[in-house]
Amino acid sequence: MDTKILLSQIEQELQKQISRLDNPRTQPFHEMLTYHMGWTGEGAGPEATGKRIRPLLVLLCTATCGADWQSALPAAAAVELVHNFSLVHDDIQDNSDKRRGRPTTWVKWGAPLAINVGDALFVISNQAIIDLKENYPAEVALRAAEILNNTCLDLTRGQFLDMSYEKRLDLSVDDYWPMVAGKTAALLSACCHIGALLGGADESTQEAYRSFGHYLGLAFQVQDDILGIWGDEALTGKSAASDLVEGKKSLPVLAGLGADGKFASRWKQGPILSAEVAEFARILASEGGYEKANDAAKQMTDLALMSLREADPQGEAGQALFDLADKLLKRSQ
Amino acid sequence: MDTKILLSQIEQELQKQISRLDNPRTQPFHEMLTYHMGWTGEGAGPEATGKRIRPLLVLLCTATCGADWQSALPAAAAVELVHNFSLVHDDIQDNSDKRRGRPTTWVKWGAPLAINVGDALFVISNQAIIDLKENYPAEVALRAAEILNNTCLDLTRGQFLDMSYEKRLDLSVDDYWPMVAGKTAALLSACCHIGALLGGADESTQEAYRSFGHYLGLAFQVQDDILGIWGDEALTGKSAASDLVEGKKSLPVLAGLGADGKFASRWKQGPILSAEVAEFARILASEGGYEKANDAAKQMTDLALMSLREADPQGEAGQALFDLADKLLKRSQ
Repeated sequence: MDTKILLSQIEQELQKQISRLDNPRTQPFHEMLTYHMGWTGEGAGPEATGKRIRPLLVLLCTATCGADWQSALPAAAAVELVHNFSLVHDDIQDNSDKRRGRPTTWVKWGAPLAINVGDALFVISNQAIIDLKENYPAEVALRAAEILNNTCLDLTRGQFLDMSYEKRLDLSVDDYWPMVAGKTAALLSACCHIGALLGGADESTQEAYRSFGHYLGLAFQVQDDILGIWGDEALTGKSAASDLVEGKKSLPVLAGLGADGKFASRWKQGPILSAEVAEFARILASEGGYEKANDAAKQMTDLALMSLREADPQGEAGQALFDLADKLLKRSQ
Repeated sequence: MDTKILLSQIEQELQKQISRLDNPRTQPFHEMLTYHMGWTGEGAGPEATGKRIRPLLVLLCTATCGADWQSALPAAAAVELVHNFSLVHDDIQDNSDKRRGRPTTWVKWGAPLAINVGDALFVISNQAIIDLKENYPAEVALRAAEILNNTCLDLTRGQFLDMSYEKRLDLSVDDYWPMVAGKTAALLSACCHIGALLGGADESTQEAYRSFGHYLGLAFQVQDDILGIWGDEALTGKSAASDLVEGKKSLPVLAGLGADGKFASRWKQGPILSAEVAEFARILASEGGYEKANDAAKQMTDLALMSLREADPQGEAGQALFDLADKLLKRSQ
């Protein structure tokens, strides 16, 4: 299955949804959204749009369950809009000035307008999911909206935990999973769940897809955490790119704090400096941080693939789904 | 009809909806929402909750159309949650430190966490409206969700216009209506529309209720604008309470800018000082600002009452609806 066709239709549906703001009085407002989506402004293009993994997951899950993926396009747009709403607000909350290599929305237009951009993206995601009623019975559209909004509440929970952890030094690995379950896994899980729902899968199959997305999200996040400390860019690139400098409460760090050794005592003294990154990445590894995270990544990957096999995706779309999972789960290579 | 019973049930439904965040890990997060809603923390109580006008409108419209208002409670909660989501974000955007006499959410917990509180309130409003499916056919619940989200996009449009007007000096009365249609009228209009929908009213009656809410919102806002300049508190109370000091682009101010006289030339020189408030309120009145706003308020009030008579609300709930409209539209007296 050629995912290029899916990607181009996703982009069209996203543009259609966001064009709700495309009228004379709100032209500059519309432009803020199209900038963030990667379509307009300096640096616009494929690099700026992101990979659209979430809408792809929706469409592939729908198709592999044997239904027409084009009918699911509004849901694909909805999950991508939720993702982008959370990015816009996240960038304000984290004071991040770059996103996909470009100045963030709040840097360009200020936080007050950027908060409103995020709000609009979220509203449009709800409008998009409600648009499913054109292609599905009202019960199905409503169920999709319910799954999406339950997920969004998980996102705010994860976001709260992330922010509330910032100044805490008493965290352990147990505090990690509820945070990433909300911040990363919830939406990927909803993508697969909604995709299967719209594909007409029965409850237990929907559950297998939901579970696949959940563990895919957890595995992906743990891998991202590992790359953030021991990846090429973190170690040898700009050292500021290391999660250690950013003070991110990633799984290896929480494992290191739990070990309560040399890494933990340095961490508690304040931000790790760029010059110390290589040294403390090594110390953290020697105190079990790397191994614990690597074990967790493997375990989550196994659980994801087990769930996917249980879901038993069929046909070309099924193959594409396995390929996509493979690509996401082997990204460290 | 005793609105006290309605108000107490509204409060219960709101608490039930917000309790979605009431679990051990997110306890402090739940508390931020209950603080903003006026239930907990310093100054909690009736003064801090606001008047719950929007959910009252939903329930009264449902009841007067002859249906059971209790079935509409999730929708009543949803509109109040949307209102409060917009207040939390608005306070950050406007840098306001007080809301209903208490420190705003962002003042208490910082902007990053407050953005997340607003997001959660909006998510829960969507979950609440979807809960209608327990009491109504899926089509009706979905239609209510559609009306609510279309309204929310209008809210973001109004918010954008409001912020984009801040530094503009070339505004006229024509720029006023699209802004307040989004910021104030859209949600009141949705309350009446959704109430009538859930009451089982036909399309044309729904339209009359929608129109009533729309003009009620516009009339209410213009009156608020008048009170913000010539009300007791604005003129003789703390002068900082005057909209003239705050630089608010209210209808009288835009009328004054259009007159291009003494008021306009002073306005263009920068913020009006507390000491000048009485003088420039007088000048603005002499240049037609008061009369234009007063005429508009009367006109919008007439349109609101005409729409309400066309909707022809029945029974005790109908009387309560007229009473509520009366109270809102005569608030300057």
